[in-house]
Amino acid sequence: MIIEKIDKSRFTPEIFNIQSFGTAFADHMLVCSYKDGKWGEPIIKPYGKLEFTPAMSVAHYGQGIFEGMKAYKGSEGDVFLFRPEKNFERMNKSAVRLDMPEIPEEIFMEGLKALVDLDRQWVPDIYGMSLYLRPVMFATEEAITARSANEYLFVILTAVAPNYYNKPLSVKVADRYSRAANGGVGYAKAAGNYAGSFYPTHIAREEGYDQVIWTDDATHTLIEEAGTMNVMVRIGDKLLTAPTSERILNGVTRDSMIELAKSSGIDIEVRKITVEEVYNAHKSGELKEVFGVGTAVVVNNYVAVGYGDERLELPDLPLEESYGKSLKKKLVDLQMGISEDPFGWRIKVEEKLVEA
Amino acid sequence: MIIEKIDKSRFTPEIFNIQSFGTAFADHMLVCSYKDGKWGEPIIKPYGKLEFTPAMSVAHYGQGIFEGMKAYKGSEGDVFLFRPEKNFERMNKSAVRLDMPEIPEEIFMEGLKALVDLDRQWVPDIYGMSLYLRPVMFATEEAITARSANEYLFVILTAVAPNYYNKPLSVKVADRYSRAANGGVGYAKAAGNYAGSFYPTHIAREEGYDQVIWTDDATHTLIEEAGTMNVMVRIGDKLLTAPTSERILNGVTRDSMIELAKSSGIDIEVRKITVEEVYNAHKSGELKEVFGVGTAVVVNNYVAVGYGDERLELPDLPLEESYGKSLKKKLVDLQMGISEDPFGWRIKVEEKLVEA
Ligand SMILES: Cc1ncc(COP(=O)(O)O)c(C=O)c1O
Ligand SMILES: Cc1ncc(COP(=O)(O)O)c(C=O)c1O
Repeated sequence: MIIEKIDKSRFTPEIFNIQSFGTAFADHMLVCSYKDGKWGEPIIKPYGKLEFTPAMSVAHYGQGIFEGMKAYKGSEGDVFLFRPEKNFERMNKSAVRLDMPEIPEEIFMEGLKALVDLDRQWVPDIYGMSLYLRPVMFATEEAITARSANEYLFVILTAVAPNYYNKPLSVKVADRYSRAANGGVGYAKAAGNYAGSFYPTHIAREEGYDQVIWTDDATHTLIEEAGTMNVMVRIGDKLLTAPTSERILNGVTRDSMIELAKSSGIDIEVRKITVEEVYNAHKSGELKEVFGVGTAVVVNNYVAVGYGDERLELPDLPLEESYGKSLKKKLVDLQMGISEDPFGWRIKVEEKLVEA
Repeated sequence: MIIEKIDKSRFTPEIFNIQSFGTAFADHMLVCSYKDGKWGEPIIKPYGKLEFTPAMSVAHYGQGIFEGMKAYKGSEGDVFLFRPEKNFERMNKSAVRLDMPEIPEEIFMEGLKALVDLDRQWVPDIYGMSLYLRPVMFATEEAITARSANEYLFVILTAVAPNYYNKPLSVKVADRYSRAANGGVGYAKAAGNYAGSFYPTHIAREEGYDQVIWTDDATHTLIEEAGTMNVMVRIGDKLLTAPTSERILNGVTRDSMIELAKSSGIDIEVRKITVEEVYNAHKSGELKEVFGVGTAVVVNNYVAVGYGDERLELPDLPLEESYGKSLKKKLVDLQMGISEDPFGWRIKVEEKLVEA
């Protein structure tokens, strides 16, 4: 690993007041290029522009995958990652489906830790805030022909993360547009999945909603997931979430919430959820909560779910009565190093991993 | 329009011997950026690298669309475009679906003509060759947050085009993977559609095929289209092609072939085609031809269609007996200015449109 340190840090404490997500980049980034069938040496260098040809294939054919994770700072100043091996594994699953080279564990893990260690002052020690970590890989080959590229760049970017949404969301159940096909790339964190979702989200916004809850593309009868969140539904005192499938991203937060729910004695069931049962549960007064879970949003308890022309309003339960809010607190407490970690999810980033 | 001419052209006649598609870029490119809700002034400048941040949103969220068209040189030295207004319209349909700004007709059309005029020596005057034209638009905003970008770059690249495939192809009918969802982006020329198709194509190649014929994702029973081609099937003396839909790209070549078939007295029908009827037609000896049609490939008569574990071999008909080959000749003759153009499809690129 080559380290090129920035001459003078751009850090100022005011950066922690940032309101927008994914724009306040820390001092450094990691870059590593793939060519002639092999990965080169990773380089940590000042964050900034690079030279690319506009013929680079990701801009034409969309071979791009990414991950989203966070670094947290505890009250003692320790910096933690949360289940980073999950993101590493998922990144390589995405790589296989997009016909891209897998990234070696050492480059991903050691690179990530070294980068976070070097920019540790950028990790906010503020409850609910974090440094967002964005591993990304994209095709850079200078060739406009529709085939897998032979050259790629793996990059890790980091940016100070305020709350992703500073309000509870309202979501529209998809009845016209879709995010993923059977036999498609829905389970991968593939660039194209997001681009395809923006227009339907735009339409939903015009109808007064913030996000879309995706359903299966053939019948629009099954609840799948939301924009950048898996979805959990509470009917009565039972918490439900859809099984992952080739159409649904296997979220790390979803998995962690399932474990936390179980260990909290919440009755949670992983099974298919129909739009109809959610609608009926609302009519009968049994629909207590619907919430989205994901790294960026953590947990967002929805205020309303749109179904056709109807807007199903949801109650705003207090923390102690809400599964979503109470599990969110458990999760964040664990991530920030406030509570015990019986699962072994928290990984401390050692200091001075890197000799610069 | 700003024109920055190259100091010294990189053109040499040997470039016309190139074998690989999409790598021999001509001297210039057109770039035009979108920011603050409006398009800037288009600039024609020497082809080459530009500076981009690795946080640019296309690499993360896949907002990228493109077009593919060609410039042809007739025996008198005239340079022609072929139905460019079709590509312009489709580009903007793609833009809407991907929640990207539409490109004004003037920038697209005048930019394209000026660029081709300036680099007209790069258009081969060799039958069957052309200068491939690649309008592309992608998100450049420096923000890693899953929403539509606010900044884009529109670029037109051009590259000397040899035959896309120098052999007839064999294709595998998809029975596991899919290209497009109902309510998805299949009809758009969206970057992510291609990335998603590479791995299934990779698998097909391992099974001895060159490309995949996509089927509907819910049942895999309907023939849709191939990698970068629409598909035509000849059963007996009837030519069939699937109707376009939200899952299928509305190809300019497909449309032109339908018109040429009609005007040649070929019995052509646009209707759904089942995998089963193609299979049965092969068994009964009625399956005469299956071919792909698209700008890059023009027309490619397949030698075999794979269905499950079976490889359905197709006869190699001589030009005068083959619908695919005879229509291909009609199309190329028209494009190259050799035959009459009763349809008004050929657009001559005037000389010195640009005062440099
Ligand atoms: C489509 C989609 N679903 C769900 C999630 C949640 O996954 P995770 O909890 O691993 O962040 C994400 C990622 O943020 C996502 O992009
Ligand atoms: C997916 C797909 N289908 C079909 C086609 C054929 O379209 P056209 O004839 O306009 O080139 C293309 C474009 O090349 C394509 O990318």
